[in-house]
Amino acid sequence: MDGVLADIEDHILQTYYAETGILLTRDDIKGKQEEELFPDRAVVMNICNRVGFFRNLPVMDGAIETVKQLMEDYEIYIVSAAMEFPLSLFEKHEWLAEHFPFISWRNIILCGDKSIIDTDYLIDDHCKNLDFCKGKPLMFTAFHNVEKDHHQRINHWKEVPALLKQLEEENLTLA
Amino acid sequence: MDGVLADIEDHILQTYYAETGILLTRDDIKGKQEEELFPDRAVVMNICNRVGFFRNLPVMDGAIETVKQLMEDYEIYIVSAAMEFPLSLFEKHEWLAEHFPFISWRNIILCGDKSIIDTDYLIDDHCKNLDFCKGKPLMFTAFHNVEKDHHQRINHWKEVPALLKQLEEENLTLA
Repeated sequence: MDGVLADIEDHILQTYYAETGILLTRDDIKGKQEEELFPDRAVVMNICNRVGFFRNLPVMDGAIETVKQLMEDYEIYIVSAAMEFPLSLFEKHEWLAEHFPFISWRNIILCGDKSIIDTDYLIDDHCKNLDFCKGKPLMFTAFHNVEKDHHQRINHWKEVPALLKQLEEENLTLA
Repeated sequence: MDGVLADIEDHILQTYYAETGILLTRDDIKGKQEEELFPDRAVVMNICNRVGFFRNLPVMDGAIETVKQLMEDYEIYIVSAAMEFPLSLFEKHEWLAEHFPFISWRNIILCGDKSIIDTDYLIDDHCKNLDFCKGKPLMFTAFHNVEKDHHQRINHWKEVPALLKQLEEENLTLA
């Protein structure tokens, strides 16, 4: 969800500024890892454990339309790392119910790590998930992954339907 | 969790009696399906959506000791169907934190259906999960499955370590 369906970057930068007085822009953080940017882990934990933080994230541009479109041909599961921030559990449910009401509760998974998730594709921003996924990893661009190049990259949701079609065709050719 | 780590049967019967005045015992419900026992689905939904319902379930006999013991040799994930009852999300987190504090948040998954979960074994009471699991299904005895016999059955947590050892040995012999 965060960094893929939910546009968390701006929101975390604004909240970080309010919390610490340190102003960071999207350009400042590009190519940097979270640990490097936010050395005081306690501040980030505070932000993410704040009531309403996850509930109020804006939707990633193009996500709703594309997920709807993909559901015509694919079985879509939302798999979100949420267990580290227990308050986010209900908020993530509410956020999905508001913005993605067409996704059934049957297809939502709130987890810790994603290592036992088995899908044909995984669209994710974190290499810690993509590197170990059982299907084809697709890396959604985020500040912390712009310098990684070992996964197929997605820069915007509008690229996804054509990319999946191309991957399916390559698979058919191989088989 | 419910019916495997958490002993839900007695609790649901007591709450059902309080709600409807209908007294059912563990013997009454043996071999019956939920839909047959509780024809008014709205009553069950009310019970399961009640604040505190999942938070206050007793732990299944032997579960804590056995899970601890299994963690010495296996990577244990808790995978619980929780998304149908959004209030249960935080309560299930709290329940696990109280009774199974040795399970990391990384190894907890709250989901809708379990169809994209890929583990070597699945210990579950519901055939709707066991019939489609990717690993070896192990059916934990519950009122609604006593007449099913198409999965390896577990009657009590204390049976599990020896059963897994036996299954591992059979696998080695086959390989």
